[in-house]
Amino acid sequence: MNATNVTVIGGGLIGASWAALFLAHGHRVCVHDVAPSVAASVRAELRRIQPHMALLGLPLDPETPSLWFEADLAKAVREASIVQECGPERLTFKQTLWAAVEKHCQPEALLLSSSSGITASMQARKMQTPQRMLIGHPFNPPHLIPLVEVVPGRQTSAQSVTRARDFYAALGKRVVVLRKEIPGFVANRIQAAVIRESVSLVRQGVVSVEDLDIAVQSSLGLRWATGGPFVSAHLGGGAGGIKGFFKQFAGGLQLLWLHMRLRPVLLTGKTQAALVAGVEQSYGGLSIDELASRRDQQQIALLKALQSSRTGELKP
Amino acid sequence: MNATNVTVIGGGLIGASWAALFLAHGHRVCVHDVAPSVAASVRAELRRIQPHMALLGLPLDPETPSLWFEADLAKAVREASIVQECGPERLTFKQTLWAAVEKHCQPEALLLSSSSGITASMQARKMQTPQRMLIGHPFNPPHLIPLVEVVPGRQTSAQSVTRARDFYAALGKRVVVLRKEIPGFVANRIQAAVIRESVSLVRQGVVSVEDLDIAVQSSLGLRWATGGPFVSAHLGGGAGGIKGFFKQFAGGLQLLWLHMRLRPVLLTGKTQAALVAGVEQSYGGLSIDELASRRDQQQIALLKALQSSRTGELKP
Repeated sequence: MNATNVTVIGGGLIGASWAALFLAHGHRVCVHDVAPSVAASVRAELRRIQPHMALLGLPLDPETPSLWFEADLAKAVREASIVQECGPERLTFKQTLWAAVEKHCQPEALLLSSSSGITASMQARKMQTPQRMLIGHPFNPPHLIPLVEVVPGRQTSAQSVTRARDFYAALGKRVVVLRKEIPGFVANRIQAAVIRESVSLVRQGVVSVEDLDIAVQSSLGLRWATGGPFVSAHLGGGAGGIKGFFKQFAGGLQLLWLHMRLRPVLLTGKTQAALVAGVEQSYGGLSIDELASRRDQQQIALLKALQSSRTGELKP
Repeated sequence: MNATNVTVIGGGLIGASWAALFLAHGHRVCVHDVAPSVAASVRAELRRIQPHMALLGLPLDPETPSLWFEADLAKAVREASIVQECGPERLTFKQTLWAAVEKHCQPEALLLSSSSGITASMQARKMQTPQRMLIGHPFNPPHLIPLVEVVPGRQTSAQSVTRARDFYAALGKRVVVLRKEIPGFVANRIQAAVIRESVSLVRQGVVSVEDLDIAVQSSLGLRWATGGPFVSAHLGGGAGGIKGFFKQFAGGLQLLWLHMRLRPVLLTGKTQAALVAGVEQSYGGLSIDELASRRDQQQIALLKALQSSRTGELKP
């Protein structure tokens, strides 16, 4: 993909992470944000991110002149081929924003929202050109985690979907295009299912917060980092593959689903307090920054390992 | 842990994988199985596994004289300090087996079942010495995946739980002790929750089988391989940690849970056929063996990367 003008709307953590990735792939990036401190905070985040990206072979100069800041929305989007919105998750904010953006940007600009919850159909209601607006939902942090969920709205054109897919793919992302708008999209629904059962197990007294995390991390996390639930089932069925899996496990699965559904799970104040206490007991010894830094290091190590094993470099 | 005598009951894939791990840690291993071909098939599996274990720094000689085979149960368990059962998942088989094992083994032998579904309380019903019987449930394959779920029955002694935990920990496993017997234990319940929502999303036409797998693998798998759902929530809440997470996301999570519960998911014949077709379309180009070998290679690469990043070896 050729270098292009990308405007990031909103200079928070997601916006800065997207900006880092766009810059590392040679794009010129304008960050639009009304906060006067945005230039300083985005540059600081780029400095923090730079060593991570270097480990993945992505060049990032935190002081690059390809990055600029513009508090005036009309000026910020005027030259953009791509707009990546990372603003607050409020419907009225986004509806008003897009109606303003389409007035000031090029007619061929592609308009993408990082929203995890507000669909393109809802966001585009006040637009004259909804065909070029859709969701490009990253998984945090966008500069590390490969997934982008592309979710067109009812009025998004097929051409816009293709352009969004190609744009993200050229950044090295794994792109999944959803065929229907659904609350939570795919990844956050799967995550919600896991959090639900995790909360249920801790609240039933089956395991501690820490042991639940250890169990998932040292089994399913590892499994799903190398293949999703369907290929895992295919490999869990022996020589019969997915058919063998259903033959062996369909009955047991349905009983477990029933057992899980029978028990309501609610995030009441009492439940939240118990989980907060459990998390503090398990992880209170480290600051959020220390834990996040450890996670980032490990995710980079995993990404590098997966890259190497795919190219056959695995050696003793 | 000192070298000891371990008897593996059942020489299938799980039994052979356990045997490999026990042998690599210096134990003497007897495999009991009535199939006359068991010696050949277990040795063949050890030869297949050996290079994987070498990559993880675990020495395994597939022709080691520390491994022997005994079709007579009484002789097989006579000298054992530990018995690891990996037989068929049938209640009557296990109840009859343990009643026979306790008659012939040493009084201090610890009796462990690899069962994923039949609790120790149920398995031990015909035993005179149920205090020394409990679940040590591995995640497949046991020689690679770190998790072991230790699940005591109602009559299991605290001392047996401690011995089981220490035995597995000395093999380098991550041990989680459950406080209650519950269908599916922990990891398989979490997995069942993910499969349920995955089936639902594919059957609703939101994504294809392959895209569902890509979405999980390239986001949540990576996330959970470095930390479970609670520490991930703690890190998803910004500076506020888990409290900030609940403040921001508890409402949305509860709406998603409601939305997911409203939709029944059943593994009917039609649903199974649609998923089988989806899996064949996505993965039919590779044999089960090729897919499994690729997964094993990647899991080893991830395990090595996690080991290295924990010891601070991550370098550009």
